[in-house]
Amino acid sequence: MTFRAVASKLTILAKPCVCCCACLPDCPSTVRGLHSIFQEQEMTETVHDTEGHGYLATFIGKNGRLVILRVHSQGLVTVDLQCCEGDNIAQVDNLLNALEKKLKSLLHGNIRGVKRLPALTRGAAVDRYWPTADGRLVEYDIDRVVYDEDSAYQNIKILHSQQFGNILILNGDVNLAESDLPYTQAIMGRGKENYTGKEVLILGGGDGGILAEAVKLNVYIDQMVIDGCRTHMRKACGSVLDNLKGDCYQVLVEDCVPVLKKYVEEGKTFDYVINDLTAVPISTAPEEDSTWEFLQLILDLSIKVLRPTGKYFTQGNCANLTEALALYEEQLGRLSCPVDFSKEVVCVPSYMELQILTHFMHLSLWVTFHIWVIKAAPTYNSFWVLIV
Amino acid sequence: MTFRAVASKLTILAKPCVCCCACLPDCPSTVRGLHSIFQEQEMTETVHDTEGHGYLATFIGKNGRLVILRVHSQGLVTVDLQCCEGDNIAQVDNLLNALEKKLKSLLHGNIRGVKRLPALTRGAAVDRYWPTADGRLVEYDIDRVVYDEDSAYQNIKILHSQQFGNILILNGDVNLAESDLPYTQAIMGRGKENYTGKEVLILGGGDGGILAEAVKLNVYIDQMVIDGCRTHMRKACGSVLDNLKGDCYQVLVEDCVPVLKKYVEEGKTFDYVINDLTAVPISTAPEEDSTWEFLQLILDLSIKVLRPTGKYFTQGNCANLTEALALYEEQLGRLSCPVDFSKEVVCVPSYMELQILTHFMHLSLWVTFHIWVIKAAPTYNSFWVLIV
Repeated sequence: MTFRAVASKLTILAKPCVCCCACLPDCPSTVRGLHSIFQEQEMTETVHDTEGHGYLATFIGKNGRLVILRVHSQGLVTVDLQCCEGDNIAQVDNLLNALEKKLKSLLHGNIRGVKRLPALTRGAAVDRYWPTADGRLVEYDIDRVVYDEDSAYQNIKILHSQQFGNILILNGDVNLAESDLPYTQAIMGRGKENYTGKEVLILGGGDGGILAEAVKLNVYIDQMVIDGCRTHMRKACGSVLDNLKGDCYQVLVEDCVPVLKKYVEEGKTFDYVINDLTAVPISTAPEEDSTWEFLQLILDLSIKVLRPTGKYFTQGNCANLTEALALYEEQLGRLSCPVDFSKEVVCVPSYMELQILTHFMHLSLWVTFHIWVIKAAPTYNSFWVLIV
Repeated sequence: MTFRAVASKLTILAKPCVCCCACLPDCPSTVRGLHSIFQEQEMTETVHDTEGHGYLATFIGKNGRLVILRVHSQGLVTVDLQCCEGDNIAQVDNLLNALEKKLKSLLHGNIRGVKRLPALTRGAAVDRYWPTADGRLVEYDIDRVVYDEDSAYQNIKILHSQQFGNILILNGDVNLAESDLPYTQAIMGRGKENYTGKEVLILGGGDGGILAEAVKLNVYIDQMVIDGCRTHMRKACGSVLDNLKGDCYQVLVEDCVPVLKKYVEEGKTFDYVINDLTAVPISTAPEEDSTWEFLQLILDLSIKVLRPTGKYFTQGNCANLTEALALYEEQLGRLSCPVDFSKEVVCVPSYMELQILTHFMHLSLWVTFHIWVIKAAPTYNSFWVLIV
């Protein structure tokens, strides 16, 4: 599917001025000044009645080109140009250039600002728009769909970016790119932790990044995420997803809640629990209660399987989601045992935003959380990973 | 100025299907199915003749609301909604929700994808859209204009971002944010260089970042950049811009070309030349020749004032601009003396893209270039900075 619609946007902010008719953008003479351009392009004009909300006209031309010209009452002029695939892009650019030039000349010197945004492409084979966790529009340099499948649990996309390598996107959320070693390093404590001879429990991490970086191991109950990443995210996971059992690790493809409960019952404990399962929920609305309860359940069970010297590391969320992050910190004060934490802001390349990670006893921006408890305990050179 | 126009976008990709009329998106029955919504909203419809380029209708409603509905012939439906400041955003959202829900029900199961993009805001007091060096649309989390002045040379903006702190934008190009220590560290060789007792020449760097990080010193011929940064970018420059002369540095507010020529004539040399002046030009079109010539002149003069063990560090450009970067590397082979270089990719937080830095003998993504030459020479504990 290569069909697409492209929209370019030109915005001009004119200075309010009452000296003459020619420099008032809502004045008919400004609009009339543009008519020669539309006539040259053989575009058909429709003027719409906005009931006092400024001037609005649409122009339809060759190849389905559409121009929407609005002159708002407070000096804002917007020009939107839509064209369809197959249209001559150079001609479309020329039309927009001509309109910009003419508007500048008509408003001679009475302009406070002109802004032209890159065109938005819709319906293309490759979708380049993946908004940030705090809802900002971001266009990625994605040039290829590597993998796109629906599992029983979610939609799994792996898209290729020129800068970031392959990017894993689960249900529309950017999860990890091959460039995102800083994320993995931050959630693991950025080289400050010595994992030698320690027992580590990784919850989640189906992309294999943490396991590959830690020693070697990982798992995901959504087998299709493992399958996709094993093939297409090798710069992130290496070979650790090729087998579910290695010399020092075992991957359990199971729901982590009953497994954690069993460990609590048996008194099995770990030096590190790394939770790469779920980001702090973005919304704190009532219908999200179950997500918070789930987060708290995981947190509580994880703390219970930690040795006294144990640490709990987890991601937080986009640094801008201060409310959700504050709520999460509040939860930390309500655990079955008191914990301390640190947080750290990290720049995850493919997230296009700073992230907070929280380390219990030390937190980190895609906030990671590092949490811990204190006792001497035997160490095993083994890793465990499972995921809900 | 708080007036603005907001545009939301909804895109639906329907599966091509010839089984029945109801599931073909270009079929009049799909469009008729939406009419009840527009009627409820008391919106006036205009159907436009596209001369065979699909169905196109515009609907004007209360408060100047405009909906553009296009049904393209290959299964692409686009809905654009424009509203003006003062409109009821919840009502606007409800309208878009109703249209999305109805379209999904009309096309029941014959949908390949639905995408709704965050609204674009135009004409607002704070402009949040600053495209990347390779022309991708990016919305920043900018909430405040800190400084906005035209000097004799350029427009200087300092905008506040929630994540990145204050951001310096020169003529629309994001230059440096208070979060961008990684840029400064990368161009300076990321802690691998020992600057103690060395003589360093910094070209450019009006934001004070390199100087603050190196030891203490800086300058810019555009005094207004210094003035703006001294006040509003203190996390980047510290106090180094408060005085033009310190114990170990001197700031020359002069054109760097005659100063470099004088140094060559006098035989004055340096251990490091750090060029923070100009990015590798994006376009390589003929009219840009003078920029390339300027780059080459600076490069050539800088190499001439380097000691035999001296190094030349400079930024490159966005890692995606492979052609411009290759051209720059070519230039390195044509200098008056042979040089080697290394490059490194660095993630500069506020650039929202990976960058290449090139180190002559070692290059780095906002490509920095590190370049050097070899002799034993006396060292001085002084820094020099100047800029064109």
